[in-house]
Amino acid sequence: KKRFNIALLPGDGIGPEVISVAKSVLEKAGSLEGLEFDFQEMPVGGAALDLVGVPMPEESFTAAKNSDAILLGAIGGYKWDKNEKHLRPEMALFYLRRDLKVFANLRPATVLPQLADASTLKKEVAEGVDMMIVRELTGGIYFGEPRGISINENGEEVGISTEIYAAHEIDRIARVAFETARKRRGKLCSVDKANVLDASVLWRKRVTALASEYPDVELSHMYVDNAAMQLIRDPKQFDTIVTNNIFGDILSDEASMITGSIGMLPSASLSESGPGLFEPIHGSAPDIAGQDKANPLATILSAAMLLKYGLGEEKAAKRIEDAVMDALSRGFRTGDIYSPGNKLVGCKEMGAEVLKSV
Amino acid sequence: KKRFNIALLPGDGIGPEVISVAKSVLEKAGSLEGLEFDFQEMPVGGAALDLVGVPMPEESFTAAKNSDAILLGAIGGYKWDKNEKHLRPEMALFYLRRDLKVFANLRPATVLPQLADASTLKKEVAEGVDMMIVRELTGGIYFGEPRGISINENGEEVGISTEIYAAHEIDRIARVAFETARKRRGKLCSVDKANVLDASVLWRKRVTALASEYPDVELSHMYVDNAAMQLIRDPKQFDTIVTNNIFGDILSDEASMITGSIGMLPSASLSESGPGLFEPIHGSAPDIAGQDKANPLATILSAAMLLKYGLGEEKAAKRIEDAVMDALSRGFRTGDIYSPGNKLVGCKEMGAEVLKSV
Ligand SMILES: CC(C)[C@H](C(=O)O)[C@@H](O)C(=O)O
Ligand SMILES: CC(C)[C@H](C(=O)O)[C@@H](O)C(=O)O
Repeated sequence: KKRFNIALLPGDGIGPEVISVAKSVLEKAGSLEGLEFDFQEMPVGGAALDLVGVPMPEESFTAAKNSDAILLGAIGGYKWDKNEKHLRPEMALFYLRRDLKVFANLRPATVLPQLADASTLKKEVAEGVDMMIVRELTGGIYFGEPRGISINENGEEVGISTEIYAAHEIDRIARVAFETARKRRGKLCSVDKANVLDASVLWRKRVTALASEYPDVELSHMYVDNAAMQLIRDPKQFDTIVTNNIFGDILSDEASMITGSIGMLPSASLSESGPGLFEPIHGSAPDIAGQDKANPLATILSAAMLLKYGLGEEKAAKRIEDAVMDALSRGFRTGDIYSPGNKLVGCKEMGAEVLKSV
Repeated sequence: KKRFNIALLPGDGIGPEVISVAKSVLEKAGSLEGLEFDFQEMPVGGAALDLVGVPMPEESFTAAKNSDAILLGAIGGYKWDKNEKHLRPEMALFYLRRDLKVFANLRPATVLPQLADASTLKKEVAEGVDMMIVRELTGGIYFGEPRGISINENGEEVGISTEIYAAHEIDRIARVAFETARKRRGKLCSVDKANVLDASVLWRKRVTALASEYPDVELSHMYVDNAAMQLIRDPKQFDTIVTNNIFGDILSDEASMITGSIGMLPSASLSESGPGLFEPIHGSAPDIAGQDKANPLATILSAAMLLKYGLGEEKAAKRIEDAVMDALSRGFRTGDIYSPGNKLVGCKEMGAEVLKSV
């Protein structure tokens, strides 16, 4: 039997509910493939602020760092919205990403046949969308120096953020993207703003230079403003997209909304060695927290990504993916993806139905 | 009779075709309101590169600068795509924006009832969309220093761009936005990334501080990633949006695609004094240039914005807007907005039909 240490970081809002359900599914799928898990549950975000006064306690980070993979629920809530920046729940995400060095954020955006009508896009436009956004996660304008608010020579306040990429940062995320595209439909679109930003000029140059090492991948380039349009005009044109931290933030949220099922979408954040961080892309939804209304499928599918990308256990991952499809095909729907003719269930019941299908 | 000097900058691709049509419409609408125009036509972009080797010749700039308002067609084309950055047609836009100091870019995104089905969004989602995006156009990461590609201490290339906003730059664009919202439905949404970028923290602070001067305007704030989602989920929630240069670039293109009629959308770029710059938001479409296939309506509507925002001639502007609606209601459509049951026409014929209705 193989054993793995899994750090569970439920976080805030609906985080604990969806993590609890995903944990059961992970356990069952794993045990059927001969895997055992030791779970360690630790507070992060608002939960940690309330408990110990910081969003990312040392002990929580150590547990995460020493695990084989990390499953995170969601972070943030109205309660802490007025906190100063360094005491905001979201800072937990920063520290985690930065200190775990998870530079590669994989965000699939898929329209499941069962949910093709959930999108606000016309059915014929949304149907069949299946893309993977590879977002650089530990560099760029999120972390660049100088940053801050200062007073200029006219005595006036000035806010500064710095978009900065070194060649090796671009190369390593581009390699992940080329490898990802190679395992998918072999098409990679690199998104930048090279007609304006020098950081993008270097980005395009490095990505282009790597292309010769991946002759089986068809590389194209697109400006970010055009990409924001093309995602709506014809999202099916995309297979794999690679882009920087801030453009990835914007485009992956746009793409997720195109699928119409943001409650369905998982993500993986990977480092060069060390444990990966797996989490749903939706937020903490404080308005429905504790009411057993949350859709646990994004977190369950994040557990599948954890198995596949984090532990290399593709079979167990496949079990989870299939079980989710099966529960959907049997007509079970949480409120966010409900449509007439299906069975409306809560978070726990959805989890139970997936568990049956594992 | 009032006389105005209008600089015409047709530019590249379909630019000359749509400018020629819009010019006739502008002349007729103006003359019916007692306005006379002296037009001066000057090369910019690729056309200028071919003629004199630079994208923005001194003479063209002087003519623009000394005019009462500027009408621009479109810029760019495959032919110059391999040029070095400073010899690219798009540089004309930079110099024009920067040197005319047109910091306020107004980009309406409206779904016309006649075209509600042109969007890839479901009809019930797209119908009735009517928003104005106010984009800061002469600051931020487009112009911030330091910028460039340099070699770091490891001998590695590093690309840098700087997002920077001074308080007065935020204040002046925010004022334009509040004034705009006040004349519309009184709702202003400021889009930033204040949970990550210090430049956005200052942005939010200054916009919030100005709100007390506009008690009739309801101000809200939204993170840019959420805005990219909300534009797809429920675009009707937006009235006026104000945002920085790069987010405005991305979101206004996204919003324009939501309307499904990017060939319909005009824009205005305004300075504190000096002439405004008016142009369609679509590009130069080199693939259909010279074939009389272009949709001239975005440029015609830009001429209406020129009258309204550039010259303060609202009546003449209204004439043009009404004429466009009338031609559409009579069923005339260029290829990009054609649907069965309507009459397919070329650029010139569409212009002639609008002219009839003026
Ligand atoms: C919460 C926020 C800081 C974060 C980001 O911008 O990266 C979120 O939007 C995300 O995409 O994970
Ligand atoms: C051509 C390009 C430099 C320009 C921009 O990014 O501002 C364009 O996309 C626009 O929005 O007018």
